[in-house]
Amino acid sequence: MSVASESGTETAADTAAYAPTDLTVPTRGRDRAAYDRQLVHAILDEAYVCHLGFVRDGAPVVLPTLYGRVGERLYVHGSTGSRPLRMAGDARQREEDPGLAVCLTVTHVDGLVLARSAFHHSINYRSVVIHGTAYQVTDPEEKRTALDALVDHVVPGRSADSRPANAKELAATAVLSLDLAAVSAKVRTGGPNDEPEDLGLPHWAGVVPLRKGHDPLIPSTDLAPGIETPDYLIEL
Amino acid sequence: MSVASESGTETAADTAAYAPTDLTVPTRGRDRAAYDRQLVHAILDEAYVCHLGFVRDGAPVVLPTLYGRVGERLYVHGSTGSRPLRMAGDARQREEDPGLAVCLTVTHVDGLVLARSAFHHSINYRSVVIHGTAYQVTDPEEKRTALDALVDHVVPGRSADSRPANAKELAATAVLSLDLAAVSAKVRTGGPNDEPEDLGLPHWAGVVPLRKGHDPLIPSTDLAPGIETPDYLIEL
Repeated sequence: MSVASESGTETAADTAAYAPTDLTVPTRGRDRAAYDRQLVHAILDEAYVCHLGFVRDGAPVVLPTLYGRVGERLYVHGSTGSRPLRMAGDARQREEDPGLAVCLTVTHVDGLVLARSAFHHSINYRSVVIHGTAYQVTDPEEKRTALDALVDHVVPGRSADSRPANAKELAATAVLSLDLAAVSAKVRTGGPNDEPEDLGLPHWAGVVPLRKGHDPLIPSTDLAPGIETPDYLIEL
Repeated sequence: MSVASESGTETAADTAAYAPTDLTVPTRGRDRAAYDRQLVHAILDEAYVCHLGFVRDGAPVVLPTLYGRVGERLYVHGSTGSRPLRMAGDARQREEDPGLAVCLTVTHVDGLVLARSAFHHSINYRSVVIHGTAYQVTDPEEKRTALDALVDHVVPGRSADSRPANAKELAATAVLSLDLAAVSAKVRTGGPNDEPEDLGLPHWAGVVPLRKGHDPLIPSTDLAPGIETPDYLIEL
């Protein structure tokens, strides 16, 4: 996995896939690029944080943040005072407001790939890169939906089993929306791709699969009496 | 964990810490910000991929990539034809060359934090954000050191047990360097921070600790005869 660019052109597309654009077709590793909607959704839904990039005073900023998905739209949230949220526009005034140019990236590291040659070391990964313009969500209904999606993204089913945000909390929280339009996924799987002449070298080669899942839950020590572990956590 | 900005000022610093700058002091969550060098190194050394942000045609791009650390310098690599590597300058001509403005971010997700209130849901995490200028490494010795560091970052000790890059592979690989100067870490640990009036609510609260480590190794099926699992993998 190395730094690759994303310019170029390609025409292949189907109705179930995101249309490749100049922004989403890599010049390198095209064979690993994918535009399948279900694959993209699965990668997005499995991760806990994204890395959100934007430009501030001409320089890039990349921040890790939680997110949620509702159909073809992602949401991130933050304090109303935070910089990217103040920089983003207002969805009610989208005609006039340019919004905030962002790049939102989600990556799973699935395994370490050890080749006989240093050059062919790699990792198995699944990533999604989304280019677009983020807007502040100002419609109260959409904002509530977005906040539920953010909580349910952490643990599916959780928003129904927690106290919803009150008026003060809603006012203190800003939400950005980003549509899934310029979207691409990249996936690497399998073992090392050593050169044929290296196969006899005396070096171990293969994959170290990284562990997924979670360790035993740690309940708060001050849980109200009689609260048992909910089903959505047992199934997690 | 939400989108936070990073402007502001602060003066506290010590000799073992990175000096906070306008770029690295958050306006939100200052109590979670840290500049300790050992903490930063530990966060960087434990992760497998970083998210590298740069600006292309005025818009942000965030790509996941492997990296390596040598002291106070990070390295990322890619094909010599990839865009960010062509955009970056040449370290031998640093006086004349502005390099490539980047933001390199590394994040560990350690646990899911479930509060009684939707508003206080969070995750436990450790992250490092580095702002700076990346330059192409052209010194052959530094390039070799950087590529060894990239392999050893994936599995410590591995570069000594693999075939080093040959001249053709070296020529096809570009390496960017980024000095650790404008650096900050953010860390969240512990349980949920519910409002006192919510403690009696009938919702489970606590932490879901995410699992670390790896599953059993998957050796390549075509390993040369007699190759056993090396110690650096047993200890991994």
